[in-house]
Amino acid sequence: MKFQPPKGMRDFGTEEMIIREYVIQTIKKIFEAYGFETIETPALEELELLTAKSGEDVAKQIFRIESEKEKKLGLRFDLTVPLARFLANNPQLPKPFKRYAIAPVWRYEEPQAGRLRQFYQADVDICGSSSMEADVECIACAVDCLKALGFKDLKVRVNNRKLLEAFVEILKEKIPEEVKIEFGSLEIFRAIDKLGKIGKDGVKEELKKIGMPEKQIEELLKIISIEGKYEEVLKEGEKLLKNNSKGKEGIEELKQIYEFSKIYGIAELLVLDFSLARGLDYYTGPIFEIEVKKEKIGSLAGGGRYDKLIELYGGKPTPATGISLGIERIMEILKKEKKIKLQKTRVKVFVANVEESVKKEAIEIANKLRKEGIPTQVDLMKRNLTKQLEYADALGIPFVVIVGKKEVEKKKFKVKDMEKKIEKELGVEEIIELLKEEK
Amino acid sequence: MKFQPPKGMRDFGTEEMIIREYVIQTIKKIFEAYGFETIETPALEELELLTAKSGEDVAKQIFRIESEKEKKLGLRFDLTVPLARFLANNPQLPKPFKRYAIAPVWRYEEPQAGRLRQFYQADVDICGSSSMEADVECIACAVDCLKALGFKDLKVRVNNRKLLEAFVEILKEKIPEEVKIEFGSLEIFRAIDKLGKIGKDGVKEELKKIGMPEKQIEELLKIISIEGKYEEVLKEGEKLLKNNSKGKEGIEELKQIYEFSKIYGIAELLVLDFSLARGLDYYTGPIFEIEVKKEKIGSLAGGGRYDKLIELYGGKPTPATGISLGIERIMEILKKEKKIKLQKTRVKVFVANVEESVKKEAIEIANKLRKEGIPTQVDLMKRNLTKQLEYADALGIPFVVIVGKKEVEKKKFKVKDMEKKIEKELGVEEIIELLKEEK
Repeated sequence: MKFQPPKGMRDFGTEEMIIREYVIQTIKKIFEAYGFETIETPALEELELLTAKSGEDVAKQIFRIESEKEKKLGLRFDLTVPLARFLANNPQLPKPFKRYAIAPVWRYEEPQAGRLRQFYQADVDICGSSSMEADVECIACAVDCLKALGFKDLKVRVNNRKLLEAFVEILKEKIPEEVKIEFGSLEIFRAIDKLGKIGKDGVKEELKKIGMPEKQIEELLKIISIEGKYEEVLKEGEKLLKNNSKGKEGIEELKQIYEFSKIYGIAELLVLDFSLARGLDYYTGPIFEIEVKKEKIGSLAGGGRYDKLIELYGGKPTPATGISLGIERIMEILKKEKKIKLQKTRVKVFVANVEESVKKEAIEIANKLRKEGIPTQVDLMKRNLTKQLEYADALGIPFVVIVGKKEVEKKKFKVKDMEKKIEKELGVEEIIELLKEEK
Repeated sequence: MKFQPPKGMRDFGTEEMIIREYVIQTIKKIFEAYGFETIETPALEELELLTAKSGEDVAKQIFRIESEKEKKLGLRFDLTVPLARFLANNPQLPKPFKRYAIAPVWRYEEPQAGRLRQFYQADVDICGSSSMEADVECIACAVDCLKALGFKDLKVRVNNRKLLEAFVEILKEKIPEEVKIEFGSLEIFRAIDKLGKIGKDGVKEELKKIGMPEKQIEELLKIISIEGKYEEVLKEGEKLLKNNSKGKEGIEELKQIYEFSKIYGIAELLVLDFSLARGLDYYTGPIFEIEVKKEKIGSLAGGGRYDKLIELYGGKPTPATGISLGIERIMEILKKEKKIKLQKTRVKVFVANVEESVKKEAIEIANKLRKEGIPTQVDLMKRNLTKQLEYADALGIPFVVIVGKKEVEKKKFKVKDMEKKIEKELGVEEIIELLKEEK
């Protein structure tokens, strides 16, 4: 028998886990500083819940559980749907409910660079507030996380589903009665969402398939190509949508987002981009993605407002918004650009015994170090001293304490600094002090 | 639409998560002090891997993924099988490989008190050492974790699969040729394993079904009922097995376990119990369970040696042993016995604004506190001061900073201690100092 991790999934060894835990801890601290708290929901949810507002493409990617009698289940594809379900189940919670979650999700995608079938997301969400400040707080929090991890030159692309809907409405009105074909806005959003992947011509093709006439396709592509400073693009949008009530609402929201962004100190990062659509069906208002300027690595974070989702799942009407950091992509870049110093092991010290007869004493010293919280190993292989030192070296353990008969008598032990190649003779208390300082 | 978490699975709200994270952090620190390091494997594994050595009962409990073209997958039912697969895939790793993992596993069981279909395990394993010291180190580490969580009067039940196999061999030899029916030792172990649940009569029934003659059943039940001090029970076993080579090997291992336990300071907790069998098929040597004396809550931790598993999965022959703490059961007892002080929220302070006009200043103060790592919330609902205070109180946030026009002018802000009902006037720097001290 020979087995590998399942297709599109990966093992993380000890060295990689040290970086992953650093990344997750950094993010967690900032999430908590922003006043978010964590909840945990099961990895599995009812399939009906998962597919209700995922959109076709994502629904196809759900890992489904075989079942006979009971309700059909699937692995969650994001952390927002379970949160909305949790809120629907717990209407008593004071609002706003600010929650974070750092956890794996699963999508049955064709594996490709940076796309795994199990991947971690780190989400913050604010449920119960319809203020654009909530959206900006989520964005600011995600920006702080990325900065803390060493990312510079960030760009926050912003758009609003209300604007996209309004654009589609306007275009639909212009289509002559006789050629009118039914097409939904969500299909159009999904087509636009692929712009980065398949380019303008690809999007054109998709829109043709949906049944949009050539003229309106051109017009839509023109609109989503508008570029410029946030406030300039906003003005262009305002002109286009002056007679559309949904459009005006969206414009007003985008204005407020910009105002709050100034207070939160992130206004200069904001770019208003009408081509931003996002893939999931549940968004109802502002949507956003954070990426690194000039780098074609895709977005590091993305999210938006989903004011109807909690209600749809049987909860009280609860406006909500959130953002999700993509841990795997962040990890990939950190490793590639070597932004983080690699550490081979968390083990601090190896207590070696020169001969079997002092094994007991070696273990007793190890026990004392462990009680102080110092990561300690002893020999478990009945190896001679040379082999023990080789093992400590192979693992990258920085210190070795050598326990021999003489040392036991003197109550002084050789402590080898494996990197600096220095030796000291120290008592157990002194060893503890030394290793605690080195933490 | 109305949805609940899937059957047998639970949501953990913010308060419960604070305890869970405390429990997990406590365990993690001790695991690390013992020189274990963490790896992470996917939640899903190939079904063939999962079923190879799980035993029938567990194989039935695997959540299986629907699949058409690709290899069949299932959710892991423990953390040992994925570890063994990882070791088989990574033969280059220096030995011993000491790994810990704290993560969810899934079993499709009939939900009952304390048994969930998604539950967390916290495992330490030592791969590459055949020394009984490795087994004892794992046990000692688990005992330290439970003690750190406030558990007293612990009992470590120990047995050895080699002894159980030897007992079955001896009994088989006594069965007359003419009635000889084929029955495997694993089936017998699984029957014995149910002793706690179904009692002696239940086990008798099970053994009858397997095809064991009445006389041998009685004899087996007599053997597994031997009670007494560790060394006494060991002597009884030695007598019974003096002519069986596998049995003698097992006895020798149990002697060494006792010797190492003395050095690790846990010998007085050890009980040698021939009725301990454990459910999984992969065990090959010593097995152990930790429970609280006099309490019928089942075991808090369990494990054993699995010297053949890594090899079976295509790896190099690698002796291995490990133990697993059951987080859900630990949580249940801690909550029931109120061993841990409940904390409602991690949020430290709410920065309230008296009127909308000073919103900007309130956010700026919040940003400063957040930069210092102090968990801070601001109003996101455009509420008046009274409502803001009510919200802070409902969440259990211990401090509120009140920002009004006058306060902004004076650069001094009222800080309300919500529990002690005291107010102070402080500048932002002083507020930071106060809240950092209170951490």
